[in-house]
Amino acid sequence: MKSKEVVLRKRPEGMPTDDDFEIVEREIADPEQGEVLIHNTYMSVDPYMRGGMREASPLGEPLHGGAVGKVVASRNDDFKEGGYVRHDFGWREYLLSEGRGLRKIDATLAPLSTHLGVMGMPGLTAYGGLLVTGELKEGERVFVSAASGAVGSTVGQIARIKNCTVIGSAGSDAKVDYLINEYGFDHAFNYKTANILEELRKGAPEGIDVYFENVGGRQLEAALAHIRLYGRIPVCGLIASYNDFETATPGPRNLGEIIHKFVSLRGFVVSAFEQQRPEFLRDMSQWIKSGQMKYKETIFEGIENAPTAFQGLFSGVNDGKMLVRLSDG
Amino acid sequence: MKSKEVVLRKRPEGMPTDDDFEIVEREIADPEQGEVLIHNTYMSVDPYMRGGMREASPLGEPLHGGAVGKVVASRNDDFKEGGYVRHDFGWREYLLSEGRGLRKIDATLAPLSTHLGVMGMPGLTAYGGLLVTGELKEGERVFVSAASGAVGSTVGQIARIKNCTVIGSAGSDAKVDYLINEYGFDHAFNYKTANILEELRKGAPEGIDVYFENVGGRQLEAALAHIRLYGRIPVCGLIASYNDFETATPGPRNLGEIIHKFVSLRGFVVSAFEQQRPEFLRDMSQWIKSGQMKYKETIFEGIENAPTAFQGLFSGVNDGKMLVRLSDG
Repeated sequence: MKSKEVVLRKRPEGMPTDDDFEIVEREIADPEQGEVLIHNTYMSVDPYMRGGMREASPLGEPLHGGAVGKVVASRNDDFKEGGYVRHDFGWREYLLSEGRGLRKIDATLAPLSTHLGVMGMPGLTAYGGLLVTGELKEGERVFVSAASGAVGSTVGQIARIKNCTVIGSAGSDAKVDYLINEYGFDHAFNYKTANILEELRKGAPEGIDVYFENVGGRQLEAALAHIRLYGRIPVCGLIASYNDFETATPGPRNLGEIIHKFVSLRGFVVSAFEQQRPEFLRDMSQWIKSGQMKYKETIFEGIENAPTAFQGLFSGVNDGKMLVRLSDG
Repeated sequence: MKSKEVVLRKRPEGMPTDDDFEIVEREIADPEQGEVLIHNTYMSVDPYMRGGMREASPLGEPLHGGAVGKVVASRNDDFKEGGYVRHDFGWREYLLSEGRGLRKIDATLAPLSTHLGVMGMPGLTAYGGLLVTGELKEGERVFVSAASGAVGSTVGQIARIKNCTVIGSAGSDAKVDYLINEYGFDHAFNYKTANILEELRKGAPEGIDVYFENVGGRQLEAALAHIRLYGRIPVCGLIASYNDFETATPGPRNLGEIIHKFVSLRGFVVSAFEQQRPEFLRDMSQWIKSGQMKYKETIFEGIENAPTAFQGLFSGVNDGKMLVRLSDG
């Protein structure tokens, strides 16, 4: 059987171009004992992949990335034909696998594509970071930065579902409007033009209980200044250069605020929440079906368009999660 | 009855001098119904009091500060004659009180003076910060900055009692020697001259589990760089100016380390540990009696010498906790 794959032809210099990629066709064997054949349905393109193209991704090999696909042939008892899986071997139509790195998904819970978004890693990051690390309680006041992103928009909507007051920041007035009108944020502002601390005071006059941290810098300083006693700051991301320590952005000047306010900052990555995955899938499925959880996708058709979709990430073509559909699923 | 008291005559400019203080004698009435008369045994002088002399302490009034004293007359059922109390009305020989702000202490647990030190606020700060906020477990690796101070030296010794590996930093080679030879630290270094990260690697090659934070700045950066997965940083103090935000010391450049290492930073002050006080007193009493907990005191005799003792804090006269004995107790 023939499978089209996208391989890295050369390392992009500056913005990636069509020349950096090549579509090749490869013969895929039938599954041997223990193997399973996957026909990919959706693959994800994400900005982080640009980093991998610098060194980690081997030239002439198919690129890696999140994908969901259907089991079309199986000689592995763990995977039944017709079932669906999520894995990190995207950028190809077919995958022959011994089962390592495949996670079965229940396609009845939500549209298949959402398993690369709100039902997947960004969703679990938001859910675990807010409810487990952030210990959010009903009725609290939440601030989330980068609120129009895949994680941030999910954080804000979960907080709304938990009857919390939600404040979000984003980098354009259009995104700010969207936070209010589509995602139901109580208050939102453009962090590039607004006085951040004043906006927090407007949105939560009594202070905030949880700051879901995606950014660092001035937003963290404002959050520390306006956080309440026993406030929690789950730290999902920070603008800071780990490789270039000496020139990295300094931490907040007012970190001392945490002392007399008994505040905690806690770092986490999504792997911390494997235990919560079943309840996350159950809750999120219900929220999607009831219309309480919204998400945006931009979908390109066909593996030939994957390089174009990837390049589009850097010119702002996408609105929400950028996906490529490889088959009907 | 006559009581000598130290009042603030004028506000110190630069280093405090004898001229800034005055010893006055005041007539104390006999207790009326509900009142209790305390004869102070020890009073504490502390650097923080210099701050209060700038504005908060009224001129012509006796200064405030931690003290322990004996109940010498009582018409208050809560306090028996012959019992002991701890309170914040030092700088005077006698105190007539309605009972507010007095905490009874059990004089059989440890020497009376220790209730201003290891059995008092600095001790509970160390105990709660390390065991409750820091969630220290047996056998872990602990780093404490300002380790020769009242809090830091107690932190280090508690960690040793819990069979942990203990690293401490201090500001002179003499203090470093003391940490090793007297307090039993496993490793110690002079943060002014040493490469901090290298010292942490020497003292705990596999990384540290808990950093008891008293200082901030470069020591926090080194601790973040060398902390292990799921490390905890109880934050007791930070060199940072809360009033002068714009010129405050920036936070650590590598705060992002907390994300992939699942590290928590948690601020606290001693009031968080009121619930732990009974077990703290029981443990600390036992450790003092068994010789496992050491402490240093410099004691001046007589209230007339309180201003001299206070001034001595700033010229390094004291070795350990600086106290003034006001009576035999």
